[in-house]
Amino acid sequence: MLTISQRGIEMPASPIRKLVPYAEAAKKRGITVYHLNIGQPDIATPPSIMDAVKNMDMHVLEYSHSAGNESYRRKLVKYYEKQGIEVTHEQILITTGGSEAIMFAFFSCMNPGDEVVIPEPLYANYLGFACAAGVTVVPIKSTIDTGFALPPAEDFEKVITGKTKAILVCNPNNPTGYLYSRQEIEEIGEICKKHNLYLFSDEAYREFCYTDEKHFSAMQLEGLEEIVVLMDTISKRYSACGARIGALVTKNKELYTTALKFAQARLSPPGLAQILAEAAVDLPDDFFSEPKAEYLSRRDVLIKRLNEMEGVYCSNPGGAFYAIAKLPIADCDKFCQWLLESFSHNNQTVMLAPATGFYATPGLGTNEVRLAYVLNKESIEKAMDCLEVALKEYPGRTID
Amino acid sequence: MLTISQRGIEMPASPIRKLVPYAEAAKKRGITVYHLNIGQPDIATPPSIMDAVKNMDMHVLEYSHSAGNESYRRKLVKYYEKQGIEVTHEQILITTGGSEAIMFAFFSCMNPGDEVVIPEPLYANYLGFACAAGVTVVPIKSTIDTGFALPPAEDFEKVITGKTKAILVCNPNNPTGYLYSRQEIEEIGEICKKHNLYLFSDEAYREFCYTDEKHFSAMQLEGLEEIVVLMDTISKRYSACGARIGALVTKNKELYTTALKFAQARLSPPGLAQILAEAAVDLPDDFFSEPKAEYLSRRDVLIKRLNEMEGVYCSNPGGAFYAIAKLPIADCDKFCQWLLESFSHNNQTVMLAPATGFYATPGLGTNEVRLAYVLNKESIEKAMDCLEVALKEYPGRTID
Repeated sequence: MLTISQRGIEMPASPIRKLVPYAEAAKKRGITVYHLNIGQPDIATPPSIMDAVKNMDMHVLEYSHSAGNESYRRKLVKYYEKQGIEVTHEQILITTGGSEAIMFAFFSCMNPGDEVVIPEPLYANYLGFACAAGVTVVPIKSTIDTGFALPPAEDFEKVITGKTKAILVCNPNNPTGYLYSRQEIEEIGEICKKHNLYLFSDEAYREFCYTDEKHFSAMQLEGLEEIVVLMDTISKRYSACGARIGALVTKNKELYTTALKFAQARLSPPGLAQILAEAAVDLPDDFFSEPKAEYLSRRDVLIKRLNEMEGVYCSNPGGAFYAIAKLPIADCDKFCQWLLESFSHNNQTVMLAPATGFYATPGLGTNEVRLAYVLNKESIEKAMDCLEVALKEYPGRTID
Repeated sequence: MLTISQRGIEMPASPIRKLVPYAEAAKKRGITVYHLNIGQPDIATPPSIMDAVKNMDMHVLEYSHSAGNESYRRKLVKYYEKQGIEVTHEQILITTGGSEAIMFAFFSCMNPGDEVVIPEPLYANYLGFACAAGVTVVPIKSTIDTGFALPPAEDFEKVITGKTKAILVCNPNNPTGYLYSRQEIEEIGEICKKHNLYLFSDEAYREFCYTDEKHFSAMQLEGLEEIVVLMDTISKRYSACGARIGALVTKNKELYTTALKFAQARLSPPGLAQILAEAAVDLPDDFFSEPKAEYLSRRDVLIKRLNEMEGVYCSNPGGAFYAIAKLPIADCDKFCQWLLESFSHNNQTVMLAPATGFYATPGLGTNEVRLAYVLNKESIEKAMDCLEVALKEYPGRTID
């Protein structure tokens, strides 16, 4: 018999997409589904950067440099400078989405059998890339009681072994929305330094921080230049998820050279999208004020409504556009399916992502869901109306 | 010490790009360099498909389906139908270039330690993807004396072991330009069937065949539906290398589902380029006549000139836009460097790719170079003038 590979069997299916058939069936029954399950922003891609593509003057759509167009990388140097991150264009490798930056980092830094420590709940696709690379994700539990703050250093120390090669943090965090403080990032840096580990920092949501303090990047850690690998993307920053432009940034020259070899094998990152991404660097500095204010006001509506519901708890996330809520439901996987399959309120329902898909440890997060506030406030209000009624009607409710 | 991974160390650097610094230095000295070293076509990307992107009406550049836009996949069904390949849109997975199709196939079908048999000389990046996937490339030698025809079945039989999971053929071939006949493809199919192996068929150059016979795709093999995996790309077909749009096509449902999990982890293929790729399917049927005639006339110039040079031999490749030539030089790596470093003729020189980079077996191809005919005829003539003079002047010439 012709067989598929073991890693192909073990490769996790997307937890966000598992419920899609139920949503499609609900829509076919004429029910409006509010999608709080995926991080696809509804905010328009800035027209000026779309225009950069529309106005391109190009006769042959050639391969770009494997590291990305030099003109784009040179511009990014200035973008990072504004974030307090000092890098050269030869320390920036343009990737096909943030996804490829994660993949290049995993493949370049870790051997099969090696371990990467990641606070959970975590971005589910880390598990997929780890599976592809043959490395093991070792989760450290963060809890809703602390708002998903960094677990104490001793929790990290407990799991670090000779096989551990890296710690990965996503800041601000997907799926929790938690914004790590400068002190927390410094603490992780210290652990990495002490144990000789890479620090992978996924900063996809850097622009969306709702505290007074400026986002502190792991790239700003002093004396850890060889250790830190930044995984970046324009997807959320400019509402350009479909562009597939990201970056791996590191001052570690040997690592950069290695990642570049993986980049050369796949020839080049997307060409048309690099035009858009390069134009985005020229957006005015105050460009982010509007989307940020919009997300912030949505967050406030969402969190308020959630915490007003009986038995529901949600901490106030400091960044990104996600929140994890604890529901008075023992099995949220079933509940999320029921919302689509058996429930409607005024012919509407809400689609949520069961939190279990974001935990690497089986059995965790069964009473939690992740919500993305990527719909306008009116839709969020209506989605919350649905959830409120649903929680009262649901036969599996644990608290009465 | 922080170390990079073993696969990162073993990952081959691009053989085509190794000489780039010498070419850049030559250009700085004011020398014109004719690039016959890379497969970057100079032919314009069809303006109408660039216009499709320029005229797009899109407000949010969203993630597409992980398998690619359904509208595009449905159109591709018709494209393949014209090639005599019958598939449904659910058997087509849009990838980020042909590169990702190769990667998904390797990761989905093979475990670390498994083997894939590939006739050499071969497309060098297969070695990179194999390294990333932890699989071993087992080369079967094809020779210039037969024009790089398929090695006899017994050569395959000799190397097939319990670890062998697949045979990979590139048809028409990069780097040899060899066009496999229907009979040869059937022969490979038989070997795969007998030994229970996947047949990976890279058909990136399908449109560029210069014989009277129509290209025969491995997808047309009857009774081998579960075995065949087509790796495809629009890069060369429409001179759109920078788009990064390819496809993995297979009727094996389990394999498709597995590859889709890898695709979901990276979210989606490039969005802007999918607009371009979809428009390309609507190009008139006779679109290929012009670029094909152009490549054919360039091939004829190149092959004629090469074979007129003393001690040089080149067979007449039936497809793609590459040729491998045997030179009267023992070490073509050194010769290619010398061409850039120490030679010029009328202030011009030529950049060639040493063939050693296309052999997996060390020591093979030392007296061969690969030439890509992606420049206009005038430039090819001038490049050949340079080569002719260089061969006479080169101190390391083996035949006098």
